Amino acid sequence: MSQATGRRKVTRITLGGEPVRRADTLTAEEPLEIRVGRKPLAVTMRTPGDELDLALGFLFTEGIIGAPDDVKSAILCAGDTDENTFNVVDVTLAGHVPPPDLGAERNFYTTSSCGVCGKASIDAIRVRSRFEVDGPTVSPAVLAELPGRLRDAQRSFARTGGLHAAGLFTAAGELIAAREDVGRHNAVDKLVGWALREDRLPLSGLVLMLSGRAGFELVQKAWMAGVGLVAAVSAPSTLAVDLAEEAGMTLVGFLRAPTMNVYSHPGRVA
Amino acid sequence: MSQATGRRKVTRITLGGEPVRRADTLTAEEPLEIRVGRKPLAVTMRTPGDELDLALGFLFTEGIIGAPDDVKSAILCAGDTDENTFNVVDVTLAGHVPPPDLGAERNFYTTSSCGVCGKASIDAIRVRSRFEVDGPTVSPAVLAELPGRLRDAQRSFARTGGLHAAGLFTAAGELIAAREDVGRHNAVDKLVGWALREDRLPLSGLVLMLSGRAGFELVQKAWMAGVGLVAAVSAPSTLAVDLAEEAGMTLVGFLRAPTMNVYSHPGRVA
Repeated sequence: MSQATGRRKVTRITLGGEPVRRADTLTAEEPLEIRVGRKPLAVTMRTPGDELDLALGFLFTEGIIGAPDDVKSAILCAGDTDENTFNVVDVTLAGHVPPPDLGAERNFYTTSSCGVCGKASIDAIRVRSRFEVDGPTVSPAVLAELPGRLRDAQRSFARTGGLHAAGLFTAAGELIAAREDVGRHNAVDKLVGWALREDRLPLSGLVLMLSGRAGFELVQKAWMAGVGLVAAVSAPSTLAVDLAEEAGMTLVGFLRAPTMNVYSHPGRVA
Repeated sequence: MSQATGRRKVTRITLGGEPVRRADTLTAEEPLEIRVGRKPLAVTMRTPGDELDLALGFLFTEGIIGAPDDVKSAILCAGDTDENTFNVVDVTLAGHVPPPDLGAERNFYTTSSCGVCGKASIDAIRVRSRFEVDGPTVSPAVLAELPGRLRDAQRSFARTGGLHAAGLFTAAGELIAAREDVGRHNAVDKLVGWALREDRLPLSGLVLMLSGRAGFELVQKAWMAGVGLVAAVSAPSTLAVDLAEEAGMTLVGFLRAPTMNVYSHPGRVA
């Protein structure tokens, strides 16, 4: 089984000093292949851990599954030999679920008749999301504490400095769950997959807190999971703001106490 | 034509103060569809700008093209209507270039007989890279200045706080080219596409400086382009270090003057 961190030799250089050779703890990164019915669907570079949740969350946020009973089984093939680490999750869908389109055109961004455009992407997601967004109202004082609480919940960051985190919090600021990964989208998929397994979707009463930036794909995943308020430590993009606006979702960026920016539906921050 | 930044209304909240409504400049993010011979190959979320370089760099670092004359034409379809922004690059390959495999298995990580593992991924890239890595020797004092020089070269970051950057520098610290993007892999692909058009590949004598973390995919792209020294402001992952070690590439992380960590082939930092 792969580990979330690994040790490597490093030469530490300080200007004007002598180089020092020592061991350093790094974030582990391995490919994970997600298969549906034994057919490869996607490969993601991820931090080992929570592979089943990652696969289920990915299938959910891509709109392939919508409920726990859409999945008949999910198997993690993992092991070590001298040379290889196997990193495959094979999901068998229930009989009533149509199999995903495995063609190159399966990416939903390309299904629009207008070619590829931000507006069409947003329309496509609106069709796909199973939930109406219904967010919590959260006070600025509570929001201001979430980055620190998410950081406290991170198991690996302090050791490696290399991981993105995503956390679910109540409107009172209580941590429900947190996940971390080299890929920020993976951290969110791990959370969503966990919530799917726990039958906690939609996540409408909760805050999704992100340790980094808020790009389009993260807001898309949040919308698919019915999150009403997304908060990020760093900057959002234009399309992320437009998507949050359309979805009725509150998007908070640059959340760095004592200030924060609310980019859409500011009524929920009060 | 899309812009690299966009303006959106934001509610700025300061704890204990009154919310202020104002306009804010954000990083633009739009999907770009890369087509080969009018068939969709990939969609990437990117910052508008340098689309042809991004597409060519992507095709090069994926091993689909290897030289400027492998491309017969590359057309950017871009325009504005009231509703849509078209974001498509259509590349026509020269007659001697085999078309890319458009199946779901086209990702090279999945071609290995051992399933999906880090070792196999590295082996697959070794087969694919057209260049032997041959790096420059760079002094720690020069390296220490590169993050600041890259930051100086960034056009949008100061306005939006939302962009990754990648820069090519000589061993003396002279900036050759810099690109920025919401996606760090896109910033590198834009550089590699530019270098391909300018017939400057391989990039063996240069330093590739990254504003963020050094993950596997960035080191893979650097190897494909023949870069000998990759330096990053933040953490590398285990697989990135393993790949750099195998490639004969020097990987510097946590480059924050006056210190830095050299994770592979430290002889080039002297």
